[in-house]
Amino acid sequence: MKILVANLGSTSYKYRLLDMADEGWLARGGVERIGAEESRVYADIAGHALETRAPVPDHADAIRRCFEQLTDPQHGCLQSADEVAAIGFKAVHGGRMSGVQHVTPELLDAMEEMNQIAPAHNPPYIAAMRLIREKLPDKPLVAAFETAFHLTIPPARRHYAVPYEWAEQCRLQKWGFHGASHRYIVTRIGQLMDQPDLRVISCHLGGSSSLCAARDGKSVATSMGMSPQSGLPQNNRVGDFDPFALPLLMQATGKPLEGVLNDLAEQSGLLGLSGLSGDIRDLEQAAAEGHDRARLALDVYVESIRHYLGGMLVALGGVDALVFTGGIGENSPAIREGVCRELEELGIALDASGNTSGKGERRLDGETSRTQIWVVPTKEELVVARQVQQLLKG
Amino acid sequence: MKILVANLGSTSYKYRLLDMADEGWLARGGVERIGAEESRVYADIAGHALETRAPVPDHADAIRRCFEQLTDPQHGCLQSADEVAAIGFKAVHGGRMSGVQHVTPELLDAMEEMNQIAPAHNPPYIAAMRLIREKLPDKPLVAAFETAFHLTIPPARRHYAVPYEWAEQCRLQKWGFHGASHRYIVTRIGQLMDQPDLRVISCHLGGSSSLCAARDGKSVATSMGMSPQSGLPQNNRVGDFDPFALPLLMQATGKPLEGVLNDLAEQSGLLGLSGLSGDIRDLEQAAAEGHDRARLALDVYVESIRHYLGGMLVALGGVDALVFTGGIGENSPAIREGVCRELEELGIALDASGNTSGKGERRLDGETSRTQIWVVPTKEELVVARQVQQLLKG
Repeated sequence: MKILVANLGSTSYKYRLLDMADEGWLARGGVERIGAEESRVYADIAGHALETRAPVPDHADAIRRCFEQLTDPQHGCLQSADEVAAIGFKAVHGGRMSGVQHVTPELLDAMEEMNQIAPAHNPPYIAAMRLIREKLPDKPLVAAFETAFHLTIPPARRHYAVPYEWAEQCRLQKWGFHGASHRYIVTRIGQLMDQPDLRVISCHLGGSSSLCAARDGKSVATSMGMSPQSGLPQNNRVGDFDPFALPLLMQATGKPLEGVLNDLAEQSGLLGLSGLSGDIRDLEQAAAEGHDRARLALDVYVESIRHYLGGMLVALGGVDALVFTGGIGENSPAIREGVCRELEELGIALDASGNTSGKGERRLDGETSRTQIWVVPTKEELVVARQVQQLLKG
Repeated sequence: MKILVANLGSTSYKYRLLDMADEGWLARGGVERIGAEESRVYADIAGHALETRAPVPDHADAIRRCFEQLTDPQHGCLQSADEVAAIGFKAVHGGRMSGVQHVTPELLDAMEEMNQIAPAHNPPYIAAMRLIREKLPDKPLVAAFETAFHLTIPPARRHYAVPYEWAEQCRLQKWGFHGASHRYIVTRIGQLMDQPDLRVISCHLGGSSSLCAARDGKSVATSMGMSPQSGLPQNNRVGDFDPFALPLLMQATGKPLEGVLNDLAEQSGLLGLSGLSGDIRDLEQAAAEGHDRARLALDVYVESIRHYLGGMLVALGGVDALVFTGGIGENSPAIREGVCRELEELGIALDASGNTSGKGERRLDGETSRTQIWVVPTKEELVVARQVQQLLKG
């Protein structure tokens, strides 16, 4: 079974095409600048690069263009688009609908109810999925929600301390996100350590970051709450924040609630603190050159990770594997070093030289560490493809 | 030097009168139902109970009535009210003014700016302090802010990830509260363990709760943020919450922002979750009788304490003393047991029988515990009195 996993931005489309026979990928590619006068349509098919430029008005057309490359007579990997059993989407917030679902009008309505909660994520996905459904009516579309992996979190760590009725009325709870990534990491580390009943803390650190604690392969805690703006500071999203500060901010900025929330979702996080960039690489360079606020942003980020790491350490009563993944988790020795600093007494000790060398899946713990520390590159598309396959098989 | 420490509610007044020669208390008392047709004016002076009933229109009159009892020719402990060098107030949020301060019009203005941030705490204090200043102009009034002990928290744990300018413009930071209590606990545990350079986690658990991490006697982390509604769930206050849920709640309840924030400050926390009571004793009894939501409220409370305990364990790299104080911290073995459950691997192990017996200052850790676990009754008034004395001495 061949499954295409789509990753949608407001003006971009990226995909991977997986063959579930061996779970390898056949092709990857996408379209940049959708809706512009000219868009770039690109693909990497078995190591061969294709690129064309053409006007691509919308996401449905983007998918059609990419299928043209995938079925290219000379370099394509498909005879026909029919070979693709389904298109899977890593959808963010379905509110009353989670898990893995066929994309239906009802599902899109449920996602739409969460637009204010996930303003950067839900609206572009909904618009694109609606269009693709309309224009490619024969292709099964499946949404695998980022919240699904966290449905096993126990009530005591899922509830906010609000009037109970609100939780039911507004689906108000700590949902958690990055489910595909955390699911992959937790499964994979079980294989690598040849032990499925582990206590794992998965640190997905990237443009968007969250931590997840898992026991016996199931999520039992996560750093993200009701919205993807909560938890750790993100590139431009605030992370945990005190809602009682909002009236002061509305007064000080002269903006209505919506405006302040927009700023918290777009002008905050590492970008807001540093005043410079939301990209850790820029901040690390600027901090090295003496930029105080870049240093502060990095420090706040690391302390916030340590805060949740501690909470999860206590939730699990100790941890067997601490895993770093995501663009930052895989590639920033300084962030990993900051997160693990002075934790020997709690059983976590990084191997200094291991931390600064190597590539791909690797162990980083020092001799005295009771916890194994790993870098494991995540494979979110594979998890989504597996979920789609399971749903199709019924 | 004799110092009176006042504790103000919206319709109540309580005090302790301390003699700083030996730091012992000479009297305690107060007035209930201020502004009602008849108020109760009571005192305990060297074990002798006094009680009168009279109309007491306001807080200034309440203080005057209490001075009458303190100077009672037969049972009083003062010749004259002049013997009291100053009245100290445990004030909550001064925003741009923290530390220990003479009560001036400027100070009251600074507190007023924080009214929306501390709606249950600041307005009654400001009203009463303004009145007392006016009606007892000769008596020095001193405010010791609950935020003062936390001014040593490093920037990385003090900043929210918001545009940097907002932090300066709105005094937006994690302030922390219960400073008098945490200061007392941290100082006292240093004496009890005869070691001032300890890593301490102080759990002040009561009608209002927070955790504080201290190193070498100084606060380095706290669970409360910008407002006293943040951090752990309180009796009727929400604790940590995701501001991006507010638009949904406004829509669902039909209330404006202010109304939803009011509900989060008054109808949430343990009360909101349980639908029953904000008092842990009620909840423990109801849970024992099978009340599911009382059980949930207790579980959310304990998990939230454990979350911060973990964060502080990592912030300190381990902990030498874990101290419980406050009404719940001192008196609920079940909450202490829940907080310490399954933490042996992290060096924290409660002695089961020690936890359920004893009174006053006592150690509760089991043989295998690397961390000393204590109950230490807090003495917030003593800390305020010490701070007032220091300020008066210049």
